[in-house]
Formats: sequence, C-alpha cells, structure tokens
Amino acid sequence: MPDQPITVALACDHAAVELKHVLIAWLGEQGHATLDLGTDGPASVDYPDFGYALAEAIADGRARFGVALCGSGIGISIAVNRHPQARCARVSEPLSARLAREHNDANVIAMGARLIGPDMARECLATFLATEFLGGRHAGRVAKLDKPPVLKEPA
Amino acid sequence: MPDQPITVALACDHAAVELKHVLIAWLGEQGHATLDLGTDGPASVDYPDFGYALAEAIADGRARFGVALCGSGIGISIAVNRHPQARCARVSEPLSARLAREHNDANVIAMGARLIGPDMARECLATFLATEFLGGRHAGRVAKLDKPPVLKEPA
Repeated sequence: MPDQPITVALACDHAAVELKHVLIAWLGEQGHATLDLGTDGPASVDYPDFGYALAEAIADGRARFGVALCGSGIGISIAVNRHPQARCARVSEPLSARLAREHNDANVIAMGARLIGPDMARECLATFLATEFLGGRHAGRVAKLDKPPVLKEPA
Repeated sequence: MPDQPITVALACDHAAVELKHVLIAWLGEQGHATLDLGTDGPASVDYPDFGYALAEAIADGRARFGVALCGSGIGISIAVNRHPQARCARVSEPLSARLAREHNDANVIAMGARLIGPDMARECLATFLATEFLGGRHAGRVAKLDKPPVLKEPA
C-alpha cells in the first residue's frame, strides 16, 4: 500500500458495475478516496467513453491511479491507452499487476469482470497499489510511452 | 484460420526474441506471410520503439494482423495502443484471444514471453487468427476507438 491515502478513479461498462462496487468498497476500507466515473446501471453503454473519461482523470490529476473494468477488460484498456499520459495494464493475476508497476509505471489497471472473480480482482488491485516503479533502465522506456509518434501527425 | 493467407507482422524486445521465432515458424507452417520488425538479438532495446513500428505496419496496410511480444506483454501493448488504428489485446489464454477478435476487432495480440510458454502463445495466436469480429453492437464501440479525444488536442 502507498504510505498515504490516494485517490483511485474507477470506470466500467455495464458488464462490470458489480465488480466496480466491490472494489470501491475495498478501497474505502483501505482508507483511499475513490472517484466513480460510472457507468452505474445495467443499460448498455460504450466502453470507450468510460475509458477516455478515466484517462482524463489520471492526466489532469484528479486521481493518482485508475481501475478500468469491462466484460473482458480488453476494450476499455485499449481506450485508456489512447491517452499518452495513461499507462494501462490489462491483468488477470497478481504477478502481472506487480510487473505493470515495477517495469511500466502503469497508472491504470484493467480487468475483465466476466473472466476473473472479485477476490482475484481485489488481489490484483492490492498488488498493483502496493508496488513501486523500479525506475532505472525502465524510466527511459516509460518516457517514450509519453511521446507516441502518432500524436505528431494531424488528427 | 482466415480463408486466405495473410501477412502477420511481429515485433518484440530482447526478452521475447525466441518466442517470436517460434511464432514465425508456426505462421509459416500455416501458409501465412510474416513481417519481422525485430528486435533480433539479446541487446537491450526499448519496447516502445518496436510497438510503434508494429502499429505503423498495421495502419499502413503492410500487415493485416500483428503480434507484439515483450517480457510481460504489458509495455509493448501500451505502445501499440497509442496508435488509433491499432487495437491491441494483451492476453495469456485463448478465451481472451477470442473475445479480443469477437468484441473488439483487435488487430494486434500482445503476449509476455516470461509469463506464458510457447505452446500457450501459439494457441492464443491460432485462436486470435481463427476468430471473426462479430460486428453489430460492437461496431460502434470499435469506431470510437479510432477517434480518441486526445488526438484532437495539441500534441
């Protein structure tokens, strides 16, 4: 766990509302603040909208870390990673959650509510939040993720 | 498998050279053409460089699909997804590979050479290539991945 309470933003589509609330409750128990960016009901929504909102919340400093959830975790992880200040790792077990922090300084963790259960998701998130970036040789690579060449082209 | 042979581009960092060559050999056995974008030796390289090159190869039509490999698959998947025409799914088992195609029309599969073995990687790739996008309600969401709001901002 980080030494001090942090703010964690969470976003999901309709497939992952229940898992999101499990993780919000757990984060609260750990003393962290949460920023719930929706969705909040069973109505069908588009995961890119929620992934983009989450990336913005990270980029503008409203949250230190993010949790991105959809049925598989794939679609919303693609959306989050469109933003050059977001580094989103889609994981299904804790070792990947640890490596995402140690090597990639990931600031968002993506998981699939239809593929892993709530206890595994909580364990991945706990590992993610408890792990520090190693820096060193990894820092230059992470810096390159901030400057994708595609952003230099006309939109 | 797709009805016709396709071109699959592959890119990796130094942690995944051996796995890349396993997959290149298998793709050749299946009758597919491959485009090897490196790296090709043990010298330490930066995964973003190879992820960006792979995304470009997909975007400009040199390859229909891509395979992105690094130690965990996380770093290179983030890099690939910086490009709005790339949709990269980091997977470790075949169900995710199938869902990535069915729901997200993913065109790149990312895997971690230090986390899964060559037989699992080959099975994931085979499933990925054998699965068609479902379209329908998924098509509008995929279209939104092509138009991330961040690209409308100054680079």
